[in-house]
Amino acid sequence: MRYAVLGTGEVGRTLGGELVRLGHSVVLGSRTKDNPAALEWARQAGARASTGTFAEAAAASEVIVNAVAGRASLKALQAAGAAHLDGKVVLDVSNPLAFEDGEARLSPVESDSVGEQIQRAFPRARVVKSLNTVNCQVMVDPARVPGGHQVFVCGDDEDAKGRVTELLGEFGWPADRVIDLGGIRAARSVEMWLPLWLDLMRRFGHADFNLELRRAR
Amino acid sequence: MRYAVLGTGEVGRTLGGELVRLGHSVVLGSRTKDNPAALEWARQAGARASTGTFAEAAAASEVIVNAVAGRASLKALQAAGAAHLDGKVVLDVSNPLAFEDGEARLSPVESDSVGEQIQRAFPRARVVKSLNTVNCQVMVDPARVPGGHQVFVCGDDEDAKGRVTELLGEFGWPADRVIDLGGIRAARSVEMWLPLWLDLMRRFGHADFNLELRRAR
Repeated sequence: MRYAVLGTGEVGRTLGGELVRLGHSVVLGSRTKDNPAALEWARQAGARASTGTFAEAAAASEVIVNAVAGRASLKALQAAGAAHLDGKVVLDVSNPLAFEDGEARLSPVESDSVGEQIQRAFPRARVVKSLNTVNCQVMVDPARVPGGHQVFVCGDDEDAKGRVTELLGEFGWPADRVIDLGGIRAARSVEMWLPLWLDLMRRFGHADFNLELRRAR
Repeated sequence: MRYAVLGTGEVGRTLGGELVRLGHSVVLGSRTKDNPAALEWARQAGARASTGTFAEAAAASEVIVNAVAGRASLKALQAAGAAHLDGKVVLDVSNPLAFEDGEARLSPVESDSVGEQIQRAFPRARVVKSLNTVNCQVMVDPARVPGGHQVFVCGDDEDAKGRVTELLGEFGWPADRVIDLGGIRAARSVEMWLPLWLDLMRRFGHADFNLELRRAR
């Protein structure tokens, strides 16, 4: 499969690297063509890895992964271009986190979410929110954490959720550990997990953790 | 121990009933003296159960449990009276949930929380946020749900958190399944868990579930 991964931060480089390792071709997209982090990533990742602008990456790909920071996501996807997202699966793994006066803050929050913003701005894209509830190392290697811990998917397009669930399977998440929360509106709920995740990371001293839902039936 | 449980909804009656069963005396507090739900609860709960206004309940008790709806909590505690909270442990189990146009909405959220509001309004009370992340049946009977699932405590007073942790032990939560998130500010994080909890309840079709944090180390 041909993937665009938008965003050259640790999340984008980690997801892109694992997709290449799995045999996919990946264009790591950034604002400018000469992004040093992207070039270095492609050099190390091998033959199926390349770089380009957001628009070049999206145009070349069947599936778009949004790994840009949540608050910059809309701008990055606008640069990618609505025509290049048309009918495609857009996997949004972002969180709308920013540090203000040294405090972690979330925006949008509660009445909206990045996932919903993207779906509204690009109604012909098939947006699926997933993976934002775990650190990027855990995203691509769930076995780092013991137990039957889970990830969530939500989105308005059932087929797109199915394709993301298959990709999660390639990353090591069995289908029975992928919890479908329904439509894209649930992006609010999974994005609002972040403050508790941050408190737990501080408490544990690392990010190699995740939640496992335990249920009576 | 002498407990005041403020709030005559299912959460208050369930917590109050379990406290009586454990051998404590409980005054179930409500806005008015003649609350029918409170009177019926006391009739069934037995000799150590009684009812009163918020102020009567708080005045008679060593520990105050806030089981009033989150958005009504400050008003209820103001009716209880600052003098009756002075130096006492106030265990806040509330969530700032309300249904607006059929939608579950949270307020305050992200920049504030009910736990922090209470601590600010009553600086001499020793506020501990806990138990709001699970259904009231699970609060008092964690064995309803399999596995090593956990609850959180947060608050600015270490001794108060220790006393709440002991109470959680009486309810069936071993100390190693009580995660201390630090000061009362973390009330934001645990209150923001609610939207995901609601989505999961819809998905599972019941409330007998909880999260277990799994960690690599």
